[in-house]
Amino acid sequence: MPTPFILDTDTAQDDCVAMLVGLLDPEAELVGVTMVAGNVGFDLQVRNAWMTLNVADRLDSVPVFLGCRRPLVRDWVSAENVHGDGSGGLSIDFSGLEPEAEHGVDALIRMTAERPGELTIVCIGPLTNIAMAAVKDPRFVANTKALFIMGGSNNARGNITAAAEYNFYVDPEAARTVFEAGFEITVVPWAPLTLGDAVFSREQIAEIEALGTPLARYFGQVCKQTLEFDESVGIAGSTHPDSLTASVLMHPELILKSSGYNVAIESESDLTRGYAAMSWGVHGLADNARVVERIDSAGFFDYLKGLMSQQTTPPRIFSPEL
Amino acid sequence: MPTPFILDTDTAQDDCVAMLVGLLDPEAELVGVTMVAGNVGFDLQVRNAWMTLNVADRLDSVPVFLGCRRPLVRDWVSAENVHGDGSGGLSIDFSGLEPEAEHGVDALIRMTAERPGELTIVCIGPLTNIAMAAVKDPRFVANTKALFIMGGSNNARGNITAAAEYNFYVDPEAARTVFEAGFEITVVPWAPLTLGDAVFSREQIAEIEALGTPLARYFGQVCKQTLEFDESVGIAGSTHPDSLTASVLMHPELILKSSGYNVAIESESDLTRGYAAMSWGVHGLADNARVVERIDSAGFFDYLKGLMSQQTTPPRIFSPEL
Amino acid sequence: MPTPFILDTDTAQDDCVAMLVGLLDPEAELVGVTMVAGNVGFDLQVRNAWMTLNVADRLDSVPVFLGCRRPLVRDWVSAENVHGDGSGGLSIDFSGLEPEAEHGVDALIRMTAERPGELTIVCIGPLTNIAMAAVKDPRFVANTKALFIMGGSNNARGNITAAAEYNFYVDPEAARTVFEAGFEITVVPWAPLTLGDAVFSREQIAEIEALGTPLARYFGQVCKQTLEFDESVGIAGSTHPDSLTASVLMHPELILKSSGYNVAIESESDLTRGYAAMSWGVHGLADNARVVERIDSAGFFDYLKGLMSQQTTPPRIFSPEL
Amino acid sequence: MPTPFILDTDTAQDDCVAMLVGLLDPEAELVGVTMVAGNVGFDLQVRNAWMTLNVADRLDSVPVFLGCRRPLVRDWVSAENVHGDGSGGLSIDFSGLEPEAEHGVDALIRMTAERPGELTIVCIGPLTNIAMAAVKDPRFVANTKALFIMGGSNNARGNITAAAEYNFYVDPEAARTVFEAGFEITVVPWAPLTLGDAVFSREQIAEIEALGTPLARYFGQVCKQTLEFDESVGIAGSTHPDSLTASVLMHPELILKSSGYNVAIESESDLTRGYAAMSWGVHGLADNARVVERIDSAGFFDYLKGLMSQQTTPPRIFSPEL
Ligand SMILES: [Ca+2]
Ligand SMILES: [Ca+2]
Ligand SMILES: [Ca+2]
Ligand SMILES: [Ca+2]
Repeated sequence: MPTPFILDTDTAQDDCVAMLVGLLDPEAELVGVTMVAGNVGFDLQVRNAWMTLNVADRLDSVPVFLGCRRPLVRDWVSAENVHGDGSGGLSIDFSGLEPEAEHGVDALIRMTAERPGELTIVCIGPLTNIAMAAVKDPRFVANTKALFIMGGSNNARGNITAAAEYNFYVDPEAARTVFEAGFEITVVPWAPLTLGDAVFSREQIAEIEALGTPLARYFGQVCKQTLEFDESVGIAGSTHPDSLTASVLMHPELILKSSGYNVAIESESDLTRGYAAMSWGVHGLADNARVVERIDSAGFFDYLKGLMSQQTTPPRIFSPEL
Repeated sequence: MPTPFILDTDTAQDDCVAMLVGLLDPEAELVGVTMVAGNVGFDLQVRNAWMTLNVADRLDSVPVFLGCRRPLVRDWVSAENVHGDGSGGLSIDFSGLEPEAEHGVDALIRMTAERPGELTIVCIGPLTNIAMAAVKDPRFVANTKALFIMGGSNNARGNITAAAEYNFYVDPEAARTVFEAGFEITVVPWAPLTLGDAVFSREQIAEIEALGTPLARYFGQVCKQTLEFDESVGIAGSTHPDSLTASVLMHPELILKSSGYNVAIESESDLTRGYAAMSWGVHGLADNARVVERIDSAGFFDYLKGLMSQQTTPPRIFSPEL
Repeated sequence: MPTPFILDTDTAQDDCVAMLVGLLDPEAELVGVTMVAGNVGFDLQVRNAWMTLNVADRLDSVPVFLGCRRPLVRDWVSAENVHGDGSGGLSIDFSGLEPEAEHGVDALIRMTAERPGELTIVCIGPLTNIAMAAVKDPRFVANTKALFIMGGSNNARGNITAAAEYNFYVDPEAARTVFEAGFEITVVPWAPLTLGDAVFSREQIAEIEALGTPLARYFGQVCKQTLEFDESVGIAGSTHPDSLTASVLMHPELILKSSGYNVAIESESDLTRGYAAMSWGVHGLADNARVVERIDSAGFFDYLKGLMSQQTTPPRIFSPEL
Repeated sequence: MPTPFILDTDTAQDDCVAMLVGLLDPEAELVGVTMVAGNVGFDLQVRNAWMTLNVADRLDSVPVFLGCRRPLVRDWVSAENVHGDGSGGLSIDFSGLEPEAEHGVDALIRMTAERPGELTIVCIGPLTNIAMAAVKDPRFVANTKALFIMGGSNNARGNITAAAEYNFYVDPEAARTVFEAGFEITVVPWAPLTLGDAVFSREQIAEIEALGTPLARYFGQVCKQTLEFDESVGIAGSTHPDSLTASVLMHPELILKSSGYNVAIESESDLTRGYAAMSWGVHGLADNARVVERIDSAGFFDYLKGLMSQQTTPPRIFSPEL
């Protein structure tokens, strides 16, 4: 039985891989992509999404909706130092590629309303679009089956600051709105989970690239810049929080351990802006999310590698050639 | 030459009077009403808007759009202790009255886009809808001619707390977003302006009621509950910040003094939540708003009295009868 | 019957006048001066205190204790743009003048403990010393008869920012500690009280200077720089919040109106740092202070003028000569 | 060569063990104990200190100074749910035992001034006394050789909340003052260090108790209640952050890994109150502390066990008998 989901993304690097999970897993039904301001320039992100659809030979099969180009309250903060253009310098001829006319926020509201209780949203960027939809339409929360959110750290280090992970840092008000809105939420945190179980070494990346498919070469290319950044800050490989989030939706058996937590987002301090307080049940707070604590790291790698081994014929030629 | 504007309102008591300004002033072109969560229950507010259209015999002539039923981040806080149901217990037969299908936020975006640079928005409730529109559509700010905002106090006391006026208190994040977004803004503050120049005594209210028109009786009825609340907190009359905001748009000559200020909204503290820091030019901060400092109080009363003297034939009967 | 008090001061300009109240009013018993980091450099403040004792011919009669040279938590912020050196460029030969060995905080604790329930502290600088004494010795609050505090604004504009008056801004944590500690507190706010009722015009200052006494000339000299600053920001005269605070202790009949308030200090926001939320009884908060709302402005001036008319023979010569 | 230090403590459970390090290690010169409001009632803490001196047969040899009975700004928060009375119900005849007359804050200032640059302060409670001394005397920072601070977590879970460790939570303003004051600081964090390397299992506690000395039995008794609390929240043994802090001062070789960090304390948010942001060098912030990252866990246990094996003759009989 297919798993239908929407991908809400700031498409750069591992967001592309997450999108490939939705495009390549035969059980996945990627019903739409909504773009949100995040990692790199908004238009670059859209191009990264087109290129990902192209490499999977799925151009036109999945609608791309443009969502919010800025956070709810604060100025946009880019992560271009981490991601560059988000695709390792790839390009295609984008002529004729058009996003949907419908706004991403409205698409989220409409798609979940058309299939109430059926669609999960995999949220792998700042939560601006999701918060906007929840504020705009009071039925959005109930219509949404679940949110799978990449964000925060589980009582562990952040990335953009010591306290905060990037997605929650960029739009802490949106994150706060989402975690207080009553959604069914699963969280894939940056640390320790991603840093411990979803880092691919140069050897592993090479192993995938050696598959020789366009998908595998695309994977290698989009991972490159983040890999270099990661190594510069002492992380021994490329990090895959976003594709992990999509993967654990598609394959819950990858989750070896998860628990209920009370997750609350800091939006009132500069020092701890975007910090996610994840309380594990001893502080008298009610759970509002399930946090993934341990995954089958080898299984995750094998799963992605399997997807990248598929043969596709990208309709548009990549430059530089894949 | 008519002045076209949209009224963004949490319709209760003086919001009704502000709407009447748009409906009765021959120079006003009220192009739409957008509803936002505020004073009283959302559906009550909509009924108050219908009743106001009815008393002016303008049912169906002005579209009513339902906007956000909650603030951006925080739980809704009502002001029902001040406003009761917002209409002094009036009712009509509401059958057949339907709001527009389009969401208030989208209506704001669309109407301003259709007449770029022409429409002013008179904002007399929490700024949720306005902030949502600004976040959703990057062209909304430029398309909007100006905002006339009722909110905050000009270095003076608040109402819901010592520090804060209700509209900014309810959705401080929205207010912050709006004041940082680059709009052309005029602010009508609660204090000292409203408390000093826009309080109508029992005698003045009686003077209007004595006009004997349906409008005048409606005015008296909707002012009643706020008048009683005001008197209980030491204010010697009913307060008219919202109708003043619409009035100074229509009749700039009512403004005797206004100055440029830097207005910044507190969203990071419980104690001062929603406080508007209005800096008057000596602290090295750039102006982002014009704040009305003094108005022609008698002229304002005469203007409203003149409007209420118009004869109308409300198509639906009020209960209790007007 | 004499009124014994301690003056806790950041001695510059009107702090000097406040000290003169304690030195010259025959009913005042100034039992000690404690210095706190505030307006100008700490050592300059001490010199200003010596000069004030000198002009009153009271050198050696009042002990000067050095208190805290920094706020509780934050970096010191000077007001030298307002006060210059705080004395209008006056100097004397300071040789042989020594402060007490005892720390100001300990002096506050000791003096109040020696005369439990008898001594009022007139606090006309940041509240660092007072907070320190309250934290250091749990009996300090009960031993202190009352605090007369110059600080904050009563739902009106600040000075160092729109939101905040200088004394509370410099050490908001100390102010918060003091207002939550259980003292008997009277507050003399910056606005509207000081700005409305304690501004002396150039004519009034000249009227005092014309008395021709060393005290009167000293008064004119120390007021000069603040007068110029005040005029540059639109205040038509020199401001006398500190001397007013001492004066209303000595002459309660100068207070025409005061009321109980709940006063709470903002210490958790940058925008509103040091704001004093003064709630006037309608928000369900318990009073913790009396706030002076109106004074006999002419009486205050006459009182100070009377003091300055006294003849003194300053033992040390001022340079430039008075 | 002996290592002279002052112990600043909220004496309960492992604080007692830390004190024993200072009393029993032949290289340690415990020059004084200063008490601060923390774990349990202040007077109970003093009794726990007396009992610890008694069990080591050192009554009268180490001065005990009473410091601040409350935090700088906020109300005291106890940890009695964790520590009970802090001694496992032990008592002695306390008659004739008197603390020094000098206040703890003054003792800290005086002792460090008498031996400038020589004395380290081992800080194992809230940092109120240390902050007070730094604010009171500008020379205190330079006179102090170093601070060894138990507090915060190194990008890991707190204890009293998810975000915060108890010592920093209780007095976040003091902690902020201390970390910004320019001290030479070593931090022993709660997690992951203490939870990973300084938890003693029931077997280990039994192994110490089996030594049969009064010290060993005292150790077992004071650990009991925390052990039970720890087990109730999923920690498999008693936790020893405070004795670890004293131990790594005495035996730096126990530190297997430490690094420079920028440590900043949250004092402006309720959610993250007392959180210590420990930035590890990639966020462009200057180091202000060394954080202990890994210790020789077995060596630490052996060290404490060795100390507890010493024979002492407590002059006062414990009840219940040890
Ligand atoms: Ca992403
Ligand atoms: Ca309104
Ligand atoms: Ca002063
Ligand atoms: Ca402790």
